Amino acid sequence: MAQIYDRVALIGLGHIASSMSHAMRRAGMVGEIVGYARSAETREIASAIGLCDRVVDSASDAVADADLVVLCVPVGAMEAVAREIGPALKAGATVSDVGSVKCAVIDAVGPHLPEGVHFVPAHPLAGTEHSGPRSGFAELFDNRYTIITPVKDSDPVAVAQLDALWQGMGALTEIMDAERHDRVLAVTSHTPHLIAYTMVGVADDLGRVSESEVIKYSATGFRDFTRIAASDPTMWRDVFLNNKEATLEILGRFTEELFALQRAIRRGDGDHLHDYFTRTRAIRRGIIEAGQDTDAPNFGRAPGRKD
Amino acid sequence: MAQIYDRVALIGLGHIASSMSHAMRRAGMVGEIVGYARSAETREIASAIGLCDRVVDSASDAVADADLVVLCVPVGAMEAVAREIGPALKAGATVSDVGSVKCAVIDAVGPHLPEGVHFVPAHPLAGTEHSGPRSGFAELFDNRYTIITPVKDSDPVAVAQLDALWQGMGALTEIMDAERHDRVLAVTSHTPHLIAYTMVGVADDLGRVSESEVIKYSATGFRDFTRIAASDPTMWRDVFLNNKEATLEILGRFTEELFALQRAIRRGDGDHLHDYFTRTRAIRRGIIEAGQDTDAPNFGRAPGRKD
Repeated sequence: MAQIYDRVALIGLGHIASSMSHAMRRAGMVGEIVGYARSAETREIASAIGLCDRVVDSASDAVADADLVVLCVPVGAMEAVAREIGPALKAGATVSDVGSVKCAVIDAVGPHLPEGVHFVPAHPLAGTEHSGPRSGFAELFDNRYTIITPVKDSDPVAVAQLDALWQGMGALTEIMDAERHDRVLAVTSHTPHLIAYTMVGVADDLGRVSESEVIKYSATGFRDFTRIAASDPTMWRDVFLNNKEATLEILGRFTEELFALQRAIRRGDGDHLHDYFTRTRAIRRGIIEAGQDTDAPNFGRAPGRKD
Repeated sequence: MAQIYDRVALIGLGHIASSMSHAMRRAGMVGEIVGYARSAETREIASAIGLCDRVVDSASDAVADADLVVLCVPVGAMEAVAREIGPALKAGATVSDVGSVKCAVIDAVGPHLPEGVHFVPAHPLAGTEHSGPRSGFAELFDNRYTIITPVKDSDPVAVAQLDALWQGMGALTEIMDAERHDRVLAVTSHTPHLIAYTMVGVADDLGRVSESEVIKYSATGFRDFTRIAASDPTMWRDVFLNNKEATLEILGRFTEELFALQRAIRRGDGDHLHDYFTRTRAIRRGIIEAGQDTDAPNFGRAPGRKD
């Protein structure tokens, strides 16, 4: 593929940034990849495994002469990074990010970017429960959506270039406004994560009594919650603090529905339960048809493999 | 392996029964497998695909001369089946089941079994979201637990034989009393299922507005809920109606914890959220170490495969 950016700076070298580095190299669409992480240990690992072409010791050094700067830090750390790099950005550069929340990131980052720098926020809907610079892999974004949420004055050419980069990394892309993104993600991601964390927390409380049982007998629904609830705590704290309104609204609806089902159980109302459980099957079929999950038994898990 | 039972009768020919048939044949531990299902269509499919050695038209015919009878019907249908087959059971036969709830099944089935018939309830902790006679496969139970919950007067030899059969089908087995089983499963399975159904229901309500988005952007937590919430509605209705007390108790704890997290979000209490999200990671590691899930990215899902 044709080269889109001569130099890309990744600020933060965790799971998404390290996957981007592998995916950008696979695509051959960028010249040099420069990386920076706040933690010296992370920088050392990134250097040791050759994750970037260069790993530097400050965010400002990383963005110098970069054509694209991608902020891959937790949402709560975006403002400080933007303030630091603002003066060092090259005129005409594009600044993007990979935050799971978009309105709050736009409010935090936008004011620190100088005139002549293009701001094109984005959010790749991909990830595993792993973190750190060693956890990335080139295939992470393949056939997964990346949502690009241009701001009011985003330059169309800058948007098109970032779109092409994400497609080159294997992603399907969508353009959406930031408010809509935050509402949709509150349903498909933020609230499910909070609920999974809660369920695992409840089991952990009971675990004092029956820890081994909860783990041994997890292949019954529970283990899928534990995967979700093993995600990075800092990232998720920042998501909830920064998409507060939309998450609280969905949580309110969730609690309402849950109480209705709880009441049906208490009163022995089997019809209510059966009707509810029937209509949720259709959504599953839609997801498989859309290629966003596999229908293979056990998700294609090989029983007993510990890999 | 040595043959344990000359004739096994499967009552109900859905996902678990069809997997048992394949797994028993793989193990070579039983002579003849006789099957019965209430639905004529299911019986026809089972005959057409050779699922059993014989498919018969009544439960009583199926159990005649059977050494092991396994009730593979929804929990709410167990009593009627037990009443029907009781008089036709061979002296010395073992009756078992695969219900997800054990106390209620013991209460429903036990009284209908004649003297001289051994009752050994069991519950294989395995399954996918698929159902019906075509959905079974021999590997379903491999390295998954099957919990055997003997009743007060279960014959030790009958328990040992059933234990050997499940091990022959690939399962790890555990003996546990029925009350404990129901409490542990309320945590690891029943409450997680109810919560997943609820979350998918909430998304479905909002789906009138944004259906395609909920499906397209599901690879972010939500799709794992949809798999759980695609399970058989009748089976799950019966689980909740028959493990009411334990499920309601866990639901009460869940709601309490969820409200505490919701309050932390509203008040912006990041420390509370971060602490909570940190301790849930350890449980995940335990599950992977116990061989009950894979640590592979995306559960080993191949991105974009629709199989």
